[in-house]
Amino acid sequence: MHYSSQGALGGLVDALAPVHRRRVLARGEFVAMLRSGCWRLRGWLYSPRGALRGSAESGRRGLVSCIDPSMGLNEEQKEFQKVAFDFATREMAPNMAEWDQKELFPVDAMRKAAQLGFGGIYVRTDVGGSGLSRLDTSVIFEALATGCTSTTAYISIHNMCVWMIDTFGSEEQRHRFCPPLCTMEKFASYCLTEPGSGSDAASLLTAAKRQGDHYILNGSKAFISGGGESDIYVVMCRTGGPGPKGISCIVVEKGTPGLSFGKKEKKMGWNSQPTRAVIFEDCAVPVANRIGNEGQGFVIAMKGLNGGRINVASCSLGAAHASVILTRDHLSVRKQFGEPLASNQYLQFKLADMATRLVASRLIIRSAAVALQEEREDAVALCSMAKLFATDECFAICNQALQMHGGYGYLKDYAVQQYVRDSRVHQILEGSNEVMRMLISRSLFQE
Amino acid sequence: MHYSSQGALGGLVDALAPVHRRRVLARGEFVAMLRSGCWRLRGWLYSPRGALRGSAESGRRGLVSCIDPSMGLNEEQKEFQKVAFDFATREMAPNMAEWDQKELFPVDAMRKAAQLGFGGIYVRTDVGGSGLSRLDTSVIFEALATGCTSTTAYISIHNMCVWMIDTFGSEEQRHRFCPPLCTMEKFASYCLTEPGSGSDAASLLTAAKRQGDHYILNGSKAFISGGGESDIYVVMCRTGGPGPKGISCIVVEKGTPGLSFGKKEKKMGWNSQPTRAVIFEDCAVPVANRIGNEGQGFVIAMKGLNGGRINVASCSLGAAHASVILTRDHLSVRKQFGEPLASNQYLQFKLADMATRLVASRLIIRSAAVALQEEREDAVALCSMAKLFATDECFAICNQALQMHGGYGYLKDYAVQQYVRDSRVHQILEGSNEVMRMLISRSLFQE
Amino acid sequence: MHYSSQGALGGLVDALAPVHRRRVLARGEFVAMLRSGCWRLRGWLYSPRGALRGSAESGRRGLVSCIDPSMGLNEEQKEFQKVAFDFATREMAPNMAEWDQKELFPVDAMRKAAQLGFGGIYVRTDVGGSGLSRLDTSVIFEALATGCTSTTAYISIHNMCVWMIDTFGSEEQRHRFCPPLCTMEKFASYCLTEPGSGSDAASLLTAAKRQGDHYILNGSKAFISGGGESDIYVVMCRTGGPGPKGISCIVVEKGTPGLSFGKKEKKMGWNSQPTRAVIFEDCAVPVANRIGNEGQGFVIAMKGLNGGRINVASCSLGAAHASVILTRDHLSVRKQFGEPLASNQYLQFKLADMATRLVASRLIIRSAAVALQEEREDAVALCSMAKLFATDECFAICNQALQMHGGYGYLKDYAVQQYVRDSRVHQILEGSNEVMRMLISRSLFQE
Amino acid sequence: MHYSSQGALGGLVDALAPVHRRRVLARGEFVAMLRSGCWRLRGWLYSPRGALRGSAESGRRGLVSCIDPSMGLNEEQKEFQKVAFDFATREMAPNMAEWDQKELFPVDAMRKAAQLGFGGIYVRTDVGGSGLSRLDTSVIFEALATGCTSTTAYISIHNMCVWMIDTFGSEEQRHRFCPPLCTMEKFASYCLTEPGSGSDAASLLTAAKRQGDHYILNGSKAFISGGGESDIYVVMCRTGGPGPKGISCIVVEKGTPGLSFGKKEKKMGWNSQPTRAVIFEDCAVPVANRIGNEGQGFVIAMKGLNGGRINVASCSLGAAHASVILTRDHLSVRKQFGEPLASNQYLQFKLADMATRLVASRLIIRSAAVALQEEREDAVALCSMAKLFATDECFAICNQALQMHGGYGYLKDYAVQQYVRDSRVHQILEGSNEVMRMLISRSLFQE
Repeated sequence: MHYSSQGALGGLVDALAPVHRRRVLARGEFVAMLRSGCWRLRGWLYSPRGALRGSAESGRRGLVSCIDPSMGLNEEQKEFQKVAFDFATREMAPNMAEWDQKELFPVDAMRKAAQLGFGGIYVRTDVGGSGLSRLDTSVIFEALATGCTSTTAYISIHNMCVWMIDTFGSEEQRHRFCPPLCTMEKFASYCLTEPGSGSDAASLLTAAKRQGDHYILNGSKAFISGGGESDIYVVMCRTGGPGPKGISCIVVEKGTPGLSFGKKEKKMGWNSQPTRAVIFEDCAVPVANRIGNEGQGFVIAMKGLNGGRINVASCSLGAAHASVILTRDHLSVRKQFGEPLASNQYLQFKLADMATRLVASRLIIRSAAVALQEEREDAVALCSMAKLFATDECFAICNQALQMHGGYGYLKDYAVQQYVRDSRVHQILEGSNEVMRMLISRSLFQE
Repeated sequence: MHYSSQGALGGLVDALAPVHRRRVLARGEFVAMLRSGCWRLRGWLYSPRGALRGSAESGRRGLVSCIDPSMGLNEEQKEFQKVAFDFATREMAPNMAEWDQKELFPVDAMRKAAQLGFGGIYVRTDVGGSGLSRLDTSVIFEALATGCTSTTAYISIHNMCVWMIDTFGSEEQRHRFCPPLCTMEKFASYCLTEPGSGSDAASLLTAAKRQGDHYILNGSKAFISGGGESDIYVVMCRTGGPGPKGISCIVVEKGTPGLSFGKKEKKMGWNSQPTRAVIFEDCAVPVANRIGNEGQGFVIAMKGLNGGRINVASCSLGAAHASVILTRDHLSVRKQFGEPLASNQYLQFKLADMATRLVASRLIIRSAAVALQEEREDAVALCSMAKLFATDECFAICNQALQMHGGYGYLKDYAVQQYVRDSRVHQILEGSNEVMRMLISRSLFQE
Repeated sequence: MHYSSQGALGGLVDALAPVHRRRVLARGEFVAMLRSGCWRLRGWLYSPRGALRGSAESGRRGLVSCIDPSMGLNEEQKEFQKVAFDFATREMAPNMAEWDQKELFPVDAMRKAAQLGFGGIYVRTDVGGSGLSRLDTSVIFEALATGCTSTTAYISIHNMCVWMIDTFGSEEQRHRFCPPLCTMEKFASYCLTEPGSGSDAASLLTAAKRQGDHYILNGSKAFISGGGESDIYVVMCRTGGPGPKGISCIVVEKGTPGLSFGKKEKKMGWNSQPTRAVIFEDCAVPVANRIGNEGQGFVIAMKGLNGGRINVASCSLGAAHASVILTRDHLSVRKQFGEPLASNQYLQFKLADMATRLVASRLIIRSAAVALQEEREDAVALCSMAKLFATDECFAICNQALQMHGGYGYLKDYAVQQYVRDSRVHQILEGSNEVMRMLISRSLFQE
Repeated sequence: MHYSSQGALGGLVDALAPVHRRRVLARGEFVAMLRSGCWRLRGWLYSPRGALRGSAESGRRGLVSCIDPSMGLNEEQKEFQKVAFDFATREMAPNMAEWDQKELFPVDAMRKAAQLGFGGIYVRTDVGGSGLSRLDTSVIFEALATGCTSTTAYISIHNMCVWMIDTFGSEEQRHRFCPPLCTMEKFASYCLTEPGSGSDAASLLTAAKRQGDHYILNGSKAFISGGGESDIYVVMCRTGGPGPKGISCIVVEKGTPGLSFGKKEKKMGWNSQPTRAVIFEDCAVPVANRIGNEGQGFVIAMKGLNGGRINVASCSLGAAHASVILTRDHLSVRKQFGEPLASNQYLQFKLADMATRLVASRLIIRSAAVALQEEREDAVALCSMAKLFATDECFAICNQALQMHGGYGYLKDYAVQQYVRDSRVHQILEGSNEVMRMLISRSLFQE
């Protein structure tokens, strides 16, 4: 993976790296590198074997198998995974720093991802989806997130929206909305949270009053990923009385009169996806855009989130996996006191802790994905556990990785700080981790 | 589960419990209960549904499914598991406090367990073993450990010894040693650690000098579980030069001249199994008792420990599972400020954390068991990860459970403090968790 | 410090220790040591300089000054501290294991401590107290707790009771009750908690109905330290309506008809002090034994606990200090892989963490003690913070110390496991650490 | 405190805030606020009493006294503190977001701070310093850091440089360099770290070869705060053999031929101070610019860092203090499920934990400051402990505060994420926290 200024030079990085380390640089060369700031990218981030790409192949090479994400997968899954890792390495990682710093929504890259089937991974094939399982989906998002966690997280939200339409929409709706979403010709946003209702989603106030064959929407949604850029807004709004039973799910298309957007939020991370308030002022939407029945909206929203939680946890997992690999390589290459950092027992043991927690995170995510796929009775609680455990632990892994990079970890030339910033919000959204604890404890006491 | 003074009254506990809670006690009755100290056992430890037994059945009743240990198992495994939980509930739990406080080695109970096939679970059937997998073994030890963690941990060490003889012994040795071990007519001890070599097992000094068709052993072993009570000692000793290659594995039978034992150690927990030094002074053992070739001993010892680590982690898991169930029940029944403790959000959320970490522990243990069974290349590192993660997290769960019992948690009438004390040593033995970190980090850097 | 079987041999330990390490033992000698089990006490627990006693003097010798508990104290305080450390080393440490294992209430040792002024440390001098400050008191309890945490904790409760009578009693009561308590001719118990009210102390039910010049008490108290052995019971009981305003504080003397006791509780630790239920059945107590006014009892109880919390936190601090010293010495002496354990960077860094948290614990305790002495408005919240922080951190230190002792840490021959068991309950009593969080958060939000 | 777009409106914020909350907004007004994005600043960040300024005064108003930073200070210190808090509130907080986002080095604001005496706080008065103690200094930096942590951290490094010249320089040097630094007419940078030597500072390679009355410098320094903007570079360079004894301290002035700078680093935080490599190519510096003797440089550098560690820890403390106050206010104002967030017990208890750790951090920092002032033998280890403990705990506090802000915490409109980003690097620099552990453990074992 490499960053910012290097543009399309991806393929050159590995070739350059060993040169820098194998021979003594002329002083002028070194000073030039210092001035440009790119010296460290070549010298220290990349091991000769090519960092993350190497790790994806490690299972086959007998290396670091204990954290190999392909362990336990079947051959087909290993193929998906390889495709996703390759895409992450070639199309995303070289750009992730630029997307972050310039706050670019990488439309072209996402459409390329969609060509690989990643626009509707767990959507049925007759509307353009890939028809894969929840576990397959998790494996793919984990791999993609090593290339850009923020962008992958947006793709995962988009997938969730398409799945909701595919699952709860009529045949007409499925065929109308899903195909251009699966190709990511169009982008989708999930609109549940409001300025006054975060964790307490069921108290939402956005009103949809029926007038003939339209709903008139008034209200606003906050923190909407893709807001302002997306074409399709899957909006939870109140068509009935208070509480969850009064909520319906309505698709609002960009360009509808009365639909507008707040300013683009400045955020700590997740900068490759725009976040805006979505505002409805006497916004008329055809009744034909309602997904499911009146009053079914909250159930649809929550069902979407079960998968959404696995997906966002998978994005944290990818960030943590990349952070562990980068840290191992940094420790191997960087010297202090005349020895590689890797010779420090404390750092070795910390890395062992990180790797262990990475593996535990992967297991609980994949276990939840299987439970959801099989519609097991423990699926909802397991999805909550996976989201709680993995987003907390993976953030801690990324943050510890930053620490183990020393001062370099704090620089935007190094990817590890971006994984920290991007994965931080996963502990908050799709139901904060406090809400996860609430859902789990309810499950424990419900008898 | 109930304790100490109640002897064989197991069946009465559930019947008594509701009475105590349903009606107002006459003052005399209550004072009598206070004096005897048994009031709390009936009133507070037991919910009407019977605590742990209930939990074993919960999958079938649709309750607390997210921590149900039968989730994901096949029907045969669920059967083993049910047998093990029933044995734990009927034969072990009612006695675990007494075994602890009187330091009893429960020979009869263990022989009953062996009748169910638990004396040689992953030993081949032609010598009396049950021929089950590593995963089956973990499931069984987890269930048994809810009834008495210390006793189950000893049974797991015994199983490891039998497996080592079954796997590395000759046909003659297998048929000579294994059958009475599988029935637990005889008991086995694993003798690796020495006073001067704990983590650094390969530096062991116990000498075995060949004289004709005997080895003459001199030296001593420390911290030997079952020491003094066991009939069969599987001893790692030095037949060659320094380092791991000079070590052989020799079976020493109780009664051999020159074999003696240190005083019985007083311990913080693990009191149902005796721990003693094992001392060899010119102790002559037939060469026919050597398991495997000369110099193969260290490999045998380490191979045994891979399974041993999964097993001891499974024992911690059982302790933690029981602690979570007991805590949930305590929170539901015990009142403060006019409300059940369960109405405290902080305690709810803490319980959710405990349950989540319980599930993650179970997943990493079972994943390691499968890897070991399949002889995957990541098996050794995964076993280390499982041992590190699960014994640390499960101790933390038991300890948090103690906290959530308030003052009651500190009393020996309550099981939770025993789970804390018994599981504490699992972080230290079978390779301390510091050694686990060393093994994992070696795996990460070996390329 | 040394333990159990060695009885009065205290002075010999240091002398013996170097012998064992300096020369090679004849094999017979070593085997004899193994058999007796006392080998390790001499060889590994004690450094040549005499462990804890050394630490007490370290400030003067320029050693390990960063954790020297005398740092920042004035000369007078250093004198108290030295006296307390010497008493702990000579009179308590040699017996702490025996007191624990035989569950002895060390009446004679405590009376010797009282001769040094430790029976009424912060009690006024005209009734036999030492008239020292809260900070002085903390310094003394910290030092004593290195010798036996459980016994010191009881002494601290006794001190709290005497202070309550000294502070809120009439002159007649002060002169009647305090002198024999200050000499520990008589022992006192604090009776607040009831079987049905732990954290919610204000809901207590023990009734005191006035009849002429007596109160007739009915009810029971749970978890009473010293219960059954103490001569003086400082009892919170209900003389008025519900809530805190209906509670009064009454002294009940042993031998009063209607006063009886539950069975002696079996506990995880704190075994040198008996814990029993205290039962009142038509127990008539003179009105002259009421401390303060009717309805003032809850305030008295809470004021007592402010100091009590500092005191019990100081006991945890002593346990942690001893654990750090013992661990440092163990790491220096015990070898693995041909090197002292102390050469492991991971263990070095862990010890640094422990030492840092020890110092932070000491600072917050002493800061709270000063605030309480000065009756600052932040005193109550600071006492809660000190209790929460120090009892949590110091337990963690002791528990980590146990881990760093390896298998030895689990044996009752080693003090570290006793510090773990004894300090564990400090997180629960005198207001559980959950109650501390409640008090602190109330303080934060009260504006 | 308020941010970015609001420019000079600082004074208006408090006045506006209650309006927004007291009356129902017309829909148009609300939408306008949504569009501008400034709604939340007014409504939710500011309590009527004015957030941080309120907290600074809370001691006097009897509010939240347990975290009042003025507790325990003398009257003079309270005065400094008030001045610093006022400056932070008026001059820094309103701009901290802008300085961060536009990466501005706030020269004017710092010169205003210097007018208050903050340019040379612990520098002697005859050269323009304020002549205050280390404790005074910590109190001031803590207060300033609530207004902008990054800027305050730079000021603290500047102070450290001035102190080094004041302490180790000749009279001529003191009077030549210090006065314009104390007024911050000139800015100073500390140049120790090199690309190849971070934790292992003593291995630095930058060469200073003597030629007549000049030193010719060649080499480079990395991660230099103020690099490129500062006027005075206090450079550690090698005048002698390898190891610490070969290092000297030389002042290099901006504009010296052969002095150049690397590109400005992009960083996760600390954006109000530029970080650049400093490059020496045949850079001739007068021998008269050498501070202290040849070979004394490493000692000077380390002595500077003792204070530097207290200072940077104090900056973390300010960030954490502000985060606790902002979180308490957010919990009080923000509603979920029809109740303020503050009614959630879990959040209450978490806030109590944060407040407790804030207080412990403050105590260990101030204790180290006193030890350093008194030149106590434990000062170096205590400074390391303070830096390790406080920067770790305060980062955790800020990060938990972000979590408790929910989605808002992730937005740059809210200060809490900036405290997280800015304080993150304090765990790494001035000696990483791993180096702190090394220093502490050395102190523990050195006997």
